[in-house]
Amino acid sequence: MRFSVSAVDGDARLAQLGFARGAVDTPAFMPVGTLGTVKAMTPEELAHCGAQMILGNTFHLMLRPGCEVVRAHGTLHDFMHWPRPILTDSGGFQVWSLAGLRKDREAGVTFKSPVDGAEVFLGPEESIAVQHALGSDVAMVFDECTRWPAGEGEARRSMERSLRWAVRCKAAHGAHPAALFGIIQGGMFPHLRHASLAGLAAAGFDGYAIGGLSVGEPKGDMQKILRAIAPSMPAGKPRYLMGVGSPEDILFAVACGVDLFDCVLPTRNARNGWLFTARGDVKIRNARHRTDTAPLDADCACGTCRNYSRAYLSHLYRCNEILAARLGTLHNLFFYQRLMKEIRAAIAAGCYKKFAADFCAARAG
Amino acid sequence: MRFSVSAVDGDARLAQLGFARGAVDTPAFMPVGTLGTVKAMTPEELAHCGAQMILGNTFHLMLRPGCEVVRAHGTLHDFMHWPRPILTDSGGFQVWSLAGLRKDREAGVTFKSPVDGAEVFLGPEESIAVQHALGSDVAMVFDECTRWPAGEGEARRSMERSLRWAVRCKAAHGAHPAALFGIIQGGMFPHLRHASLAGLAAAGFDGYAIGGLSVGEPKGDMQKILRAIAPSMPAGKPRYLMGVGSPEDILFAVACGVDLFDCVLPTRNARNGWLFTARGDVKIRNARHRTDTAPLDADCACGTCRNYSRAYLSHLYRCNEILAARLGTLHNLFFYQRLMKEIRAAIAAGCYKKFAADFCAARAG
Repeated sequence: MRFSVSAVDGDARLAQLGFARGAVDTPAFMPVGTLGTVKAMTPEELAHCGAQMILGNTFHLMLRPGCEVVRAHGTLHDFMHWPRPILTDSGGFQVWSLAGLRKDREAGVTFKSPVDGAEVFLGPEESIAVQHALGSDVAMVFDECTRWPAGEGEARRSMERSLRWAVRCKAAHGAHPAALFGIIQGGMFPHLRHASLAGLAAAGFDGYAIGGLSVGEPKGDMQKILRAIAPSMPAGKPRYLMGVGSPEDILFAVACGVDLFDCVLPTRNARNGWLFTARGDVKIRNARHRTDTAPLDADCACGTCRNYSRAYLSHLYRCNEILAARLGTLHNLFFYQRLMKEIRAAIAAGCYKKFAADFCAARAG
Repeated sequence: MRFSVSAVDGDARLAQLGFARGAVDTPAFMPVGTLGTVKAMTPEELAHCGAQMILGNTFHLMLRPGCEVVRAHGTLHDFMHWPRPILTDSGGFQVWSLAGLRKDREAGVTFKSPVDGAEVFLGPEESIAVQHALGSDVAMVFDECTRWPAGEGEARRSMERSLRWAVRCKAAHGAHPAALFGIIQGGMFPHLRHASLAGLAAAGFDGYAIGGLSVGEPKGDMQKILRAIAPSMPAGKPRYLMGVGSPEDILFAVACGVDLFDCVLPTRNARNGWLFTARGDVKIRNARHRTDTAPLDADCACGTCRNYSRAYLSHLYRCNEILAARLGTLHNLFFYQRLMKEIRAAIAAGCYKKFAADFCAARAG
């Protein structure tokens, strides 16, 4: 993986990630392909939206369909017919989410499979092995996502364990050609975040991620951590904010110097009828859209806005038609990818701060 | 609507329907777009599969979204972004299906809306008015679908009522530019079917349909009625077999001289993981497909078979992913449209009987 920064505007950066499977212009947003499919979309539609890289979930894929089935096809790319780069998470976040179903030890985590109830063990070495089997272009270290709220002692112990696991992941990764990113933990404590970053940087990774945010904390806490840690992350490596977020969250994080994002928000919200537009969000099931022959967003060039009315979308959602989820997801992903393009153009033009302020103001109405 | 027969092979006919919105080569299969969407598909995908005409359901659309919403967009074509011809059924079959929820009289049928419980009245004049509001290219007469089993007396009384309703529909249709098709009823009694046809032909319609088949009767009964009535239907007008059927049913009916078909089988079965191929049907959820890296059908040129393996499809179905319904529906509709193309080519080449026998034999394996 190559990484080159071509412009900066304050702390915001315009850059490019280079992989054998293609380039990724950053700041970039990766749609989430949990189970080997970005829900409701084909790979062709993802590319049409402007996505250059997607995320795959190690935890879900190791349980279904399992590594052996993916490996029989080559890599996850071959299995799901997505030829461009894929970043895989480590499974750490998902096992952490299985409250009551898991048993943590220094070796790793034993959990009951939510698919069939079988006992499964996932530790740093196992996570890296799965990510290698999936043929990931960027593997993530196996970490412990510190719960929120957590006191300083708990956050420190959790962060230190993640650091030890990161070092074991690096050893397990060895000379594998995929990139390996470290994950900064430390809860809502800036000095712990800096200690985590220092430990990871000492080990040396191809990129650095911020984990443990957007886990229930107030927006102000997330912003405090982003402001404290993002600008300090190695300038020559990509910076990835995991699992975040809304358009406004992304704009804030880009201003702090973050390059990469992933989130289920555009896809999950689309399935619930929550659609993003430059003039604010639209709950398409609301009664007032039922007879509206105007498009969802007249300024949007996506297939949904070009071909269908709000009334038609509203009808599809009310009837729980599959096409509702398709058209909504297509629009939301197109909206996110257009936002990322505009962010990159604004950084290149040196007017990022004004762009972000105007964008947020237009959405707040 | 123009209709011209260009070749015959036994009773099978190769023909073309001409509409202002485009031509339809027959024998043709119309995918069913119940609620203003062929479930899981975009109009572009339907055209890609080879569909030239689709069916819309008067009953469902009058309840949701209602005629006024469709009319605000122009026609159903504009509402759902399908620019080609649409045939609408009359709602007769659906109100007939609402056992216990309806009250029949000579005027029409009063029923409780399954959407909101409101009392709704649908009769010949109301059905035609709705079909006009939808901008249908082919409207169907409002009929009473005779239940199965029904004795001769009941079948006769029901058929005679349908005949009186057909005459009222013709009067209500007036000089409207859409085509209007009559529907032959008469249960499983060939002489009643002939009486029905004679009555309809005396009134004069733009095309004639066979209703009241595929309602639970044994396959042999359906074939007996088809053999008895289809070749007697006016040769200069299109012949439409409503709600039928499997590939084998279609092959049989084409041999009897039928031109038009519609059925939910390819779309509904696709959502349940029942996929059609030239070598027999595949239940993709079955365990043996879980690790199969081969395509669903190596001889199929659809996007599903070109890009994905049986193992991937099996995985999507097991995870209830939306993409499963999409890829399965795309394949099944592509399969049906390819069958219709091959049927037309075989009639043109004068080898329909052999083609149909070979096709059925290959599927029976």
